[in-house]
Amino acid sequence: MLRVYLSGEIHTSWREEIIEACDGLDIAFDAPVTDHAASDDCGVAILGAEPNKFWHDRKGAMVNAIRTRKGIEEADVVVVRFGEKYKQWNAAFDAGVASALGKSLIVLQQPDHDHALKEVDAAALAVARTPAEVAQILRYVLTGKLPA
Amino acid sequence: MLRVYLSGEIHTSWREEIIEACDGLDIAFDAPVTDHAASDDCGVAILGAEPNKFWHDRKGAMVNAIRTRKGIEEADVVVVRFGEKYKQWNAAFDAGVASALGKSLIVLQQPDHDHALKEVDAAALAVARTPAEVAQILRYVLTGKLPA
Amino acid sequence: MLRVYLSGEIHTSWREEIIEACDGLDIAFDAPVTDHAASDDCGVAILGAEPNKFWHDRKGAMVNAIRTRKGIEEADVVVVRFGEKYKQWNAAFDAGVASALGKSLIVLQQPDHDHALKEVDAAALAVARTPAEVAQILRYVLTGKLPA
Amino acid sequence: MLRVYLSGEIHTSWREEIIEACDGLDIAFDAPVTDHAASDDCGVAILGAEPNKFWHDRKGAMVNAIRTRKGIEEADVVVVRFGEKYKQWNAAFDAGVASALGKSLIVLQQPDHDHALKEVDAAALAVARTPAEVAQILRYVLTGKLPA
Amino acid sequence: MLRVYLSGEIHTSWREEIIEACDGLDIAFDAPVTDHAASDDCGVAILGAEPNKFWHDRKGAMVNAIRTRKGIEEADVVVVRFGEKYKQWNAAFDAGVASALGKSLIVLQQPDHDHALKEVDAAALAVARTPAEVAQILRYVLTGKLPA
Amino acid sequence: MLRVYLSGEIHTSWREEIIEACDGLDIAFDAPVTDHAASDDCGVAILGAEPNKFWHDRKGAMVNAIRTRKGIEEADVVVVRFGEKYKQWNAAFDAGVASALGKSLIVLQQPDHDHALKEVDAAALAVARTPAEVAQILRYVLTGKLPA
Amino acid sequence: MLRVYLSGEIHTSWREEIIEACDGLDIAFDAPVTDHAASDDCGVAILGAEPNKFWHDRKGAMVNAIRTRKGIEEADVVVVRFGEKYKQWNAAFDAGVASALGKSLIVLQQPDHDHALKEVDAAALAVARTPAEVAQILRYVLTGKLPA
Amino acid sequence: MLRVYLSGEIHTSWREEIIEACDGLDIAFDAPVTDHAASDDCGVAILGAEPNKFWHDRKGAMVNAIRTRKGIEEADVVVVRFGEKYKQWNAAFDAGVASALGKSLIVLQQPDHDHALKEVDAAALAVARTPAEVAQILRYVLTGKLPA
Repeated sequence: MLRVYLSGEIHTSWREEIIEACDGLDIAFDAPVTDHAASDDCGVAILGAEPNKFWHDRKGAMVNAIRTRKGIEEADVVVVRFGEKYKQWNAAFDAGVASALGKSLIVLQQPDHDHALKEVDAAALAVARTPAEVAQILRYVLTGKLPA
Repeated sequence: MLRVYLSGEIHTSWREEIIEACDGLDIAFDAPVTDHAASDDCGVAILGAEPNKFWHDRKGAMVNAIRTRKGIEEADVVVVRFGEKYKQWNAAFDAGVASALGKSLIVLQQPDHDHALKEVDAAALAVARTPAEVAQILRYVLTGKLPA
Repeated sequence: MLRVYLSGEIHTSWREEIIEACDGLDIAFDAPVTDHAASDDCGVAILGAEPNKFWHDRKGAMVNAIRTRKGIEEADVVVVRFGEKYKQWNAAFDAGVASALGKSLIVLQQPDHDHALKEVDAAALAVARTPAEVAQILRYVLTGKLPA
Repeated sequence: MLRVYLSGEIHTSWREEIIEACDGLDIAFDAPVTDHAASDDCGVAILGAEPNKFWHDRKGAMVNAIRTRKGIEEADVVVVRFGEKYKQWNAAFDAGVASALGKSLIVLQQPDHDHALKEVDAAALAVARTPAEVAQILRYVLTGKLPA
Repeated sequence: MLRVYLSGEIHTSWREEIIEACDGLDIAFDAPVTDHAASDDCGVAILGAEPNKFWHDRKGAMVNAIRTRKGIEEADVVVVRFGEKYKQWNAAFDAGVASALGKSLIVLQQPDHDHALKEVDAAALAVARTPAEVAQILRYVLTGKLPA
Repeated sequence: MLRVYLSGEIHTSWREEIIEACDGLDIAFDAPVTDHAASDDCGVAILGAEPNKFWHDRKGAMVNAIRTRKGIEEADVVVVRFGEKYKQWNAAFDAGVASALGKSLIVLQQPDHDHALKEVDAAALAVARTPAEVAQILRYVLTGKLPA
Repeated sequence: MLRVYLSGEIHTSWREEIIEACDGLDIAFDAPVTDHAASDDCGVAILGAEPNKFWHDRKGAMVNAIRTRKGIEEADVVVVRFGEKYKQWNAAFDAGVASALGKSLIVLQQPDHDHALKEVDAAALAVARTPAEVAQILRYVLTGKLPA
Repeated sequence: MLRVYLSGEIHTSWREEIIEACDGLDIAFDAPVTDHAASDDCGVAILGAEPNKFWHDRKGAMVNAIRTRKGIEEADVVVVRFGEKYKQWNAAFDAGVASALGKSLIVLQQPDHDHALKEVDAAALAVARTPAEVAQILRYVLTGKLPA
């Protein structure tokens, strides 16, 4: 079984596209919580409100870290998707963690970000442009079959 | 001796400010190559030109990784500076590497980036706003003395 | 599956409350032996009496360590509960072990211990006040759902 | 050279007694910041005040962790002193970290704490009652000479 | 599930006694090949004869190491039995490997060997005198129940 | 269960012979993609053509590394087969990786390569001449039974 | 200081060329024994003759491993040179070891070996064609200066 | 510099012979305390008498472990000498620790112990018969020079 962690951008359906395209393969997918509001507020919703936004964010980020750490540590392959918008520093941070832990890293991003992502890409075993390419890689890795 | 790696933004004098403010302390500072042009072109300048910009960048990023990996792996403290501009994904990537390797992480950034950096900050032992604060932390860590 | 080790105070029903509140989740809970008398006497009961209480205690603590080491090493999340009474140094010791092994640490304690526990809390991803909060964290980590 | 980290109680002169009694030996001693006020306030003194005492403490504990982590990680021997008063959970936490990192642990404590410390003691290679005994152990370890 | 590796003496039925006394417990036992002749000759029987006894032995010891390494590395608990006869250096070697890998070590030996085994015993969490004691420890570790 | 990775030469049926001869044993075999053309072209077939053969090869080698890394890291035993032809540097590279990761290494090669492979052989627990010998080793390791 | 291990081909002066071109840099170079006869015979010359060439080679390879293991484990950068002739499996093996240990790998080889070395190259941070290029990389890594 | 730990038999002058024969080489030698009486009694001499010989021995063995652990962990090469007499289980235990930590192991023993030591020898890179042979290996490893 291949364990794949899908990190990064949460506003498009790229995760679902990969998972669907991998139908029939022996893969266990994991991902962060992708409900943006829940992810932002989980800390204070459970552990009590914070008047200071900095600690509001900190509480949430630490609770989310329980899930993301486990997801990355148990993965064989970490796919990190950089979207068109936002800073996405958490995605690059996850890529750094994955790299330092020796995970196989696949970056999913568009060419206009190539230069800005060159250090992240240089730590990756593949730079893909579409979810379909990621799925084709996973299929090849497991079955040895290339797309027709 | 404390080994401190100064990662991130390369267009202002924050590294020099920290180093100067730590005068007299037993610290060995390290950093990436901060000559932007050399850093971008080192791969092709040494190993031969690439017509494709993607591989041009890759060659350079890999050569730079020889230096940055060693710098982070040997550091006790990794300071990562996020500036006002650019994507700075390499800075967030370095923070992820430092975190996964168990380094003490200090993030240097302005409050308007707090929300975007919340996952990175949550992995840090300090979030500083000025180079002077970073230097005061390093001085306290080594001497136990607080700023007057 | 999430593996959760429940360390610390053994005189109240906090473990049962967490486990019950996590009903339906894919969690494997583990814990030390919570039978106080058995835990104190296991060494001499099996391996022979010791006239010196120091070695009586040592024998028991070493036998218990076979269980607690495995429990902590195999856990994804270590919850450490500090109660109102006793020194509870073994709880703080377990927290230190968990932290050094990179486990996600949740501390369960009351506010009057905040200052005394500040170093332990600083190594934790969450400081909870009730077993219900711990369960809500675990539920969110696994399902992404916040309490209503 | 032997690197020895002296963790725990900060209100008596036990560190100085050990260091003095080790005069002439090739030992590098390290310790946390033992100025109680500075240790409590270092976070807010450098990084800005916090109205909430919980985060005041957290900021300080995280800055102190930069020093204590390095001290323990670089040590060959970690001596943890439990005094007569206070909860001292940070001392037990340090002992847990030291144990998990495979450091040689020496506990310095009085017999009335033997039962409460039995799990910590069980992870130690020596339980000493006086600073002089700790120094004699260090002298023996380095020179093979026993006290006359 | 507890994984227990039973190392050492191969001429008595101590393994069977432990396994039988652990009936009903969730334990996976492993052990080296205990057929003395097969163990001695496996190298040359499969890979070809050696005129020099030194290499005859080496070939066999290396093939056996494939099994023993895996057994010890995957174990939670390593029980090492020292019998009344022979040098049994392989048993002490296995104990050293287990100790360096952080396994919970139980030594099974008679009191007349206490002094000769003091360094090995000092790395163990229990020194048992009978297979029944080992089984009682394993039962207590898994169930918290002491022998009646 | 024993996990065995079969690395190296891909033009003969040695893998099938070993697997067949291990029929009935609790072994999970893994291997690289052995379809030569797919293995050579997987990078460009999925991620886009490269005019430069060097990067064509690089892209493929990196995609294949996702599979081979996982295969070697999860293996208990790595068998590396050196055939009669070709440089087979990837086989020797895999042997180096396996050795550094502490895997049990079995080399399968003919005597005329003994001198050239002496450093690789010296890191192995067995040097076999035929697939049947490898299978006999695996059978002995799991069952303790020698070939009749 | 940068520690560089120079592995591989021993019949040309590539090591001397790199070392000379790095004059003035803070680099400690290490390498295997490059006296071919001594390297082949060290085992039997010291530990006694072996009638069987296989064990003759084994004895020597194991003695040489004492040096090469230390050299690679302590290196920051491992340069592996593949020459025009011979199997050079020990060079590829060293590259595998270096890669698994997370060392920065530089491969020095000619283009006609590109395809055969593609898996080794894919684990490297640079593929150089001349000793001068290797030296330029090392100079850039340490000083940030590119060749004029 | 090569760090060499000399473990095992303490009743002959083998350590001195090796050290003397390595005169002029850049080697740092370390060893356990070789004063038999001090080694046996160090625990009780410093930490107080024990009426039970088992705990008398335990206390001493644990204090000695502070030195031996450090010695082995910091060594590049561990030489383990088995003499003609005694059980010497501590020597075999040290060999196991050294092997599990990936140290280069040299065993020094006479042929009549070959069969009993076959598992230990199989983990070693050299089996030497005399201190002179050990010194010749160390000299070759450092200088590449064979004995005349």
